[in-house]
Amino acid sequence: MINEEAKKNSLNRLKRIEGQIKGLMRMIDEEQYCIDLINQANAIRRALEQVALIIMKRHIESCVAEACKEGEGEAKIDELIKTVDRFIK
Amino acid sequence: MINEEAKKNSLNRLKRIEGQIKGLMRMIDEEQYCIDLINQANAIRRALEQVALIIMKRHIESCVAEACKEGEGEAKIDELIKTVDRFIK
Amino acid sequence: MINEEAKKNSLNRLKRIEGQIKGLMRMIDEEQYCIDLINQANAIRRALEQVALIIMKRHIESCVAEACKEGEGEAKIDELIKTVDRFIK
Amino acid sequence: MINEEAKKNSLNRLKRIEGQIKGLMRMIDEEQYCIDLINQANAIRRALEQVALIIMKRHIESCVAEACKEGEGEAKIDELIKTVDRFIK
Repeated sequence: MINEEAKKNSLNRLKRIEGQIKGLMRMIDEEQYCIDLINQANAIRRALEQVALIIMKRHIESCVAEACKEGEGEAKIDELIKTVDRFIK
Repeated sequence: MINEEAKKNSLNRLKRIEGQIKGLMRMIDEEQYCIDLINQANAIRRALEQVALIIMKRHIESCVAEACKEGEGEAKIDELIKTVDRFIK
Repeated sequence: MINEEAKKNSLNRLKRIEGQIKGLMRMIDEEQYCIDLINQANAIRRALEQVALIIMKRHIESCVAEACKEGEGEAKIDELIKTVDRFIK
Repeated sequence: MINEEAKKNSLNRLKRIEGQIKGLMRMIDEEQYCIDLINQANAIRRALEQVALIIMKRHIESCVAEACKEGEGEAKIDELIKTVDRFIK
């Protein structure tokens, strides 16, 4: 499960991402140069990926590690790999 | 340059993405299952990619096509390929 | 460490990928349609990602799980997350 | 259509990629460390992406630019955006 540190870290980042989304909407509204708009969308995408990685790290440290200790890691590892697979696509 | 249609389409999508970000923040706050959080972050990332593609399409239809007609496409195509390169990374 | 099953599975897939690379070289040599060439390159990229995921799964099942059982998962999990990060970029 | 320069460039890179695939197979056969295997697979994936970008650049410079000049760019741009979409997934 997510803990206080990962929670605070990811919520802070998502608050910043909200600001970046608003910034991108303003840039589009002002009809700024398309390549700048695309690069801004890409920067937000990267920021979101970092949030997902923070949560994934915490998930492995807690749920996956716990399951492994109890010799029942298989289902958790399968689920994790499927999640990574969706993410690299 | 971006036109009314691409502007409206991408702003509508970004408004929806804002809602999805808020939804993810709530899910984190409620300490929902990590894999669900990651999948939600991934869904938002996909939605952002679609916004970028709408803008890229419009960019090719206007700036790149215009430059090609005038026999000056090279710099615009270089810039576009660099943008795609940043995006697939 | 990699085991016999993951070894055999990934080597078989890499042999098939070698054939796909040769196929793409032939398609380029025959000057086939660019979009078909790009789609073929993309298919090979996907096949390579699946090889990486097979090895990653095995790595988690062995090294990461082992380290977690001994209460020393932290460094292994850090390393894994950095590897996933490089992969989604 | 692909031209001599893009053809030579992409074939040279694919020949190098073939060598990298063989190298990865040897690393797997020698049961090297999983993270090194994954990083090597990732390096090959990147090299493949560069081949696809070379072909995409050439495609835009020839087919897409040509179609734009004749005022018939729409279908070519649609096709290109769909190809980029498949690639960022």
